[in-house]
Amino acid sequence: MYGVTMTIKIAIAGASGYAGGEILRLLLGHPAYASGELEIGALTAASSAGSTLGELMPHIPQLADRVIEDTTAETLTGHDVVFLGLPHGFSAEIANQLGPEVTVIDCAADFRLQHAEDWEKFYGSAHQGTWPYGIPEMPGHREQLTGSKRVAVPGCFPTGATLALLPAVSEGLIEPDVSIVSITGVSGAGKKASVPLLGSETMGSLKAYNTSGKHRHTPEIAQNLGEVSDVPVNVSFTPVLAPLPRGILTTATAPLKGGVTAETARAAYEKFYANETFVYLLPEGAQPQTQSVVGSNMCHVQVEVDEHSGKLLVTSAIDNLTKGTAGAAVQCMNLAVGFEETAGLPQVGVAP
Amino acid sequence: MYGVTMTIKIAIAGASGYAGGEILRLLLGHPAYASGELEIGALTAASSAGSTLGELMPHIPQLADRVIEDTTAETLTGHDVVFLGLPHGFSAEIANQLGPEVTVIDCAADFRLQHAEDWEKFYGSAHQGTWPYGIPEMPGHREQLTGSKRVAVPGCFPTGATLALLPAVSEGLIEPDVSIVSITGVSGAGKKASVPLLGSETMGSLKAYNTSGKHRHTPEIAQNLGEVSDVPVNVSFTPVLAPLPRGILTTATAPLKGGVTAETARAAYEKFYANETFVYLLPEGAQPQTQSVVGSNMCHVQVEVDEHSGKLLVTSAIDNLTKGTAGAAVQCMNLAVGFEETAGLPQVGVAP
Amino acid sequence: MYGVTMTIKIAIAGASGYAGGEILRLLLGHPAYASGELEIGALTAASSAGSTLGELMPHIPQLADRVIEDTTAETLTGHDVVFLGLPHGFSAEIANQLGPEVTVIDCAADFRLQHAEDWEKFYGSAHQGTWPYGIPEMPGHREQLTGSKRVAVPGCFPTGATLALLPAVSEGLIEPDVSIVSITGVSGAGKKASVPLLGSETMGSLKAYNTSGKHRHTPEIAQNLGEVSDVPVNVSFTPVLAPLPRGILTTATAPLKGGVTAETARAAYEKFYANETFVYLLPEGAQPQTQSVVGSNMCHVQVEVDEHSGKLLVTSAIDNLTKGTAGAAVQCMNLAVGFEETAGLPQVGVAP
Amino acid sequence: MYGVTMTIKIAIAGASGYAGGEILRLLLGHPAYASGELEIGALTAASSAGSTLGELMPHIPQLADRVIEDTTAETLTGHDVVFLGLPHGFSAEIANQLGPEVTVIDCAADFRLQHAEDWEKFYGSAHQGTWPYGIPEMPGHREQLTGSKRVAVPGCFPTGATLALLPAVSEGLIEPDVSIVSITGVSGAGKKASVPLLGSETMGSLKAYNTSGKHRHTPEIAQNLGEVSDVPVNVSFTPVLAPLPRGILTTATAPLKGGVTAETARAAYEKFYANETFVYLLPEGAQPQTQSVVGSNMCHVQVEVDEHSGKLLVTSAIDNLTKGTAGAAVQCMNLAVGFEETAGLPQVGVAP
Repeated sequence: MYGVTMTIKIAIAGASGYAGGEILRLLLGHPAYASGELEIGALTAASSAGSTLGELMPHIPQLADRVIEDTTAETLTGHDVVFLGLPHGFSAEIANQLGPEVTVIDCAADFRLQHAEDWEKFYGSAHQGTWPYGIPEMPGHREQLTGSKRVAVPGCFPTGATLALLPAVSEGLIEPDVSIVSITGVSGAGKKASVPLLGSETMGSLKAYNTSGKHRHTPEIAQNLGEVSDVPVNVSFTPVLAPLPRGILTTATAPLKGGVTAETARAAYEKFYANETFVYLLPEGAQPQTQSVVGSNMCHVQVEVDEHSGKLLVTSAIDNLTKGTAGAAVQCMNLAVGFEETAGLPQVGVAP
Repeated sequence: MYGVTMTIKIAIAGASGYAGGEILRLLLGHPAYASGELEIGALTAASSAGSTLGELMPHIPQLADRVIEDTTAETLTGHDVVFLGLPHGFSAEIANQLGPEVTVIDCAADFRLQHAEDWEKFYGSAHQGTWPYGIPEMPGHREQLTGSKRVAVPGCFPTGATLALLPAVSEGLIEPDVSIVSITGVSGAGKKASVPLLGSETMGSLKAYNTSGKHRHTPEIAQNLGEVSDVPVNVSFTPVLAPLPRGILTTATAPLKGGVTAETARAAYEKFYANETFVYLLPEGAQPQTQSVVGSNMCHVQVEVDEHSGKLLVTSAIDNLTKGTAGAAVQCMNLAVGFEETAGLPQVGVAP
Repeated sequence: MYGVTMTIKIAIAGASGYAGGEILRLLLGHPAYASGELEIGALTAASSAGSTLGELMPHIPQLADRVIEDTTAETLTGHDVVFLGLPHGFSAEIANQLGPEVTVIDCAADFRLQHAEDWEKFYGSAHQGTWPYGIPEMPGHREQLTGSKRVAVPGCFPTGATLALLPAVSEGLIEPDVSIVSITGVSGAGKKASVPLLGSETMGSLKAYNTSGKHRHTPEIAQNLGEVSDVPVNVSFTPVLAPLPRGILTTATAPLKGGVTAETARAAYEKFYANETFVYLLPEGAQPQTQSVVGSNMCHVQVEVDEHSGKLLVTSAIDNLTKGTAGAAVQCMNLAVGFEETAGLPQVGVAP
Repeated sequence: MYGVTMTIKIAIAGASGYAGGEILRLLLGHPAYASGELEIGALTAASSAGSTLGELMPHIPQLADRVIEDTTAETLTGHDVVFLGLPHGFSAEIANQLGPEVTVIDCAADFRLQHAEDWEKFYGSAHQGTWPYGIPEMPGHREQLTGSKRVAVPGCFPTGATLALLPAVSEGLIEPDVSIVSITGVSGAGKKASVPLLGSETMGSLKAYNTSGKHRHTPEIAQNLGEVSDVPVNVSFTPVLAPLPRGILTTATAPLKGGVTAETARAAYEKFYANETFVYLLPEGAQPQTQSVVGSNMCHVQVEVDEHSGKLLVTSAIDNLTKGTAGAAVQCMNLAVGFEETAGLPQVGVAP
């Protein structure tokens, strides 16, 4: 049915984290899992090795008895597809040990950036290379990802910001100087014990962090927008932590180019995303809300002209764990191994 | 594959409410929808008639252009299955106009109670009758629901409480005197404008309501437990509103019968639910959490003996909109029309 | 003790709303209430008239038996100070009937704007005039407010944005082109029944609204910044609704003027707010969080230079109901009637 | 003004925790602090020693420059009052080194229990003794606490449960067999890094924990109720973690004694709490909500007869950090050192 005839065996490294759990959720709902074309093999982690999945992920009762193995090249060997949900650095270390015949879908940052100097500046280590970058909606990327044995899954903020701004930059609606504020749910920070991420500290509070270009997703956003621009795009990026488990709302403003109107802006967005299943341009007057995309692989977008200030305003909503990470990973896997691109990826959010 | 050869056409009355929206979410993910065996026909509502679904339910972009019709017997005519997500009273009024050949799945209370005096006492109007009651996990109910043209979908609290207590009552683990506290997310109260349900009033707050047997789900719980008991079961029921969108955590205590131990209690639960896909008895020592069942049709259960107080403690977690309402409705539809019982019903929660 | 020798009798119009309730909370903790110098007289409302305060505001047990009266000039007569927590339009109508000897503290928008054309454009009715504007921290305002018989309490967003940007504009740190994103808790929308403000709709969701200069606080922000600027300040303003009861986090970016460094920017902020009790410039590296100011009259501020993008980033946190409304109202009352400016106003937030 | 003529110097051990922070918040708003009768001396902690308070508690800007010292008998010496907000065990160790002239207010459990066997069973170490127990509303306790040099501040759950049930047990309204479910905000678990307490894990979820009599507050509740009963009171206690920062809602049911009616039950509660400032019996028909008591020292209570089940239902709401810990500590300090019992303790909650 999808042009594959054998069973694809999948391993997930970092299965105890939020990205790993979400990849599992999506795979278990994938039609190829139901049909037996897709099989879930090794689940690995670091400190959780030896635990059962049931202890770590009670929301996945089907695999409760699975024992988590150590994350090593050995435990990952013998799989057709390996998802990596590991800290950067360690991710590249593991990836570099996997054979060229294995499809590696890396959710870490190691292979996202094209310029070694960006990597070194923001990550402080040696650049490991650049892989096909997993936003199929970016011009040319779907083609690169189709059949690829290596995929760099994008960061959650870059996904929300890129899908918001791509048509504006590509179609010349704005000056190349964007101010982005992205408000995120707390699962984006991962599943590691930390006082500032406690429920007590995050419920009932809002806080910006890694401001003033310190966030490592800043160069990734600039790189993506730069791909569709003749000139470098100046990016001011401010992430804000908000009291919800999942979701990123991105607001982006930039100076309008002369002659751009609400109509031309909207028309440019409609045309740009006309064939994209996972980008939904909301009707005029409606604003994206993160609730609408919880658990789905959708990005909801709205574009407006603010005549008062002479700015274009674009807003987008994604689930940071789905379209922002695990959904993108599965979407890329679909392209890489020959499944239908949209297979197993919910288009309806779990709202309210 | 499911023993049906024609397309089943479905209508949803009350499509603008939370139950209606959740039924739509599940149907759009149902394999029979993908295969064309299931078609979504009329979507109706009261005050929202004339709006598009996109205006009311931005999380369902696929059907954004569908126009909501008035809820009348006429608009619902011509469908094989009609889901009713209407206020009680109005639900019976509409149901009574639908032909006997139509499969009617009623999410309201009208046809749940067996005793007219219970209905009259708690609802203050004339009893309209009793339909097969939609908890397939109750003894004998799966059989009644299979092929049935009429289904009374249970209330959300009764589902959580019944699945928690059924083995305890049925297997004689407890004296027939249970104290139930059920803590619910706010979507259980529906999508109607009301000051006490505002975000400002519900976030950051906990509050019991309809206490002391005033909640209309009280007789429904007693009725369900009574079905597996030789004697009437005395039910104290206290619902509490908590600051989360979805989820019900039920805690139930009752005096232990002599000789019951942690081991015999656990064994009774294991045996009772051995073949039930949607009930997951957690490993010893783990407690159900509502997060684990968000968006899924699962009920997670734990049973413990409190030797300190001589009580059995049972806890359960469901999503009030899924297993608590729309998931149960689809599960019953599957039984009623001949699909596989579990089709289209997620077993993995959207966690975190 | 505060230079007053008689009891000041206070009325609150709109006592059933969130602003009214918060004014009551602050007055009951005011040292002049404890000493008998301040007395709480009429509490009025519209549809709630006839109810007791206990029914509407269970968090204020001391005044539970007080009966809410109708909001009319008559019920408000005979008080030394009248707080107005009413919808705009009605607020001016009532205000215009109160004698010149009464101190009127208006929490509505009617008398905030200086230019009739701004009022007419954003509110669509005839401008009623301009009163001393209640941000004592703005240059010259403390002097205007001292002893004033009329005070226009600022909007919640303008308070957060103005306190964030005032030194930047006044001290020439930025070009006059600011992009402001303000993320607010849901109590900012008031206590009126509405589906989009239900707990189910707001918990777990983020959503921008009244975007692209449509929010009525936009001209108020521009007016405030214009007061300390030689040239008009271009304001892009995007409000976002977030799932918390109280709090506004404001992020503001603007192009840096040449020669401005992190040090000069910080020094300018330190100097500007050196004597302000209610503005707290956080230590370098710390970001404001709304939790820290819940229930307090504080505004926490941070200023940073984003060298990556050439922008100044300023962030601020306030409680929209305290410094954003009722705290400002009481602070202005203190100035107006001769109490110590800080009396009765908490400086410590209710965290976590 | 309060019968003290010298300045009372206060130390807080464990100042970096939630209890310590809340004690500071209350002391800074205490009239004796404003008048100079109360002075804040050493602030100590364990791993945070050497940090400034500003780094740890940004909500307390007035003391931002204070440096946290090590928690030792030496750093605590020279103070008139020492609050201990330490882990049990360590708390007794420090307490035992403080002189008899020092007023020690212990927020840990070490000196709460009267029976060594209870201590050993639930805490697994040697019992250190019993101090006057800090619920002044319990018969005889106010007298014990007045002028006492040692105070054991009660646990948060026991406070909510005891104030709910005291009149019922004392006045013989119920059989001595109570089922208590207490739903708590996450700050009750303290400020320690832990995966299950992350925002991602706690927002959007409900979960029972330390069930079946395993929670250490169980014997404390039984002890308190036993003080006003001729016979031991059987206690089933189920704590539930809910997604809010502060607040405990307690629901308690017990079999009614013969002849008890709604009227006699209510009358008993009214009489029992007639002179208590911090217990508010809500009007008939109203249910306590935790929002109403956030940041206040109040306990809101409702009592109802459930004729359906033959049970008494009592519900109570407190803020676990205020009346549940720090407020009780300050209330007891007031009694111990001769301030007015209610001084510095808010009676109005920070709602919404």
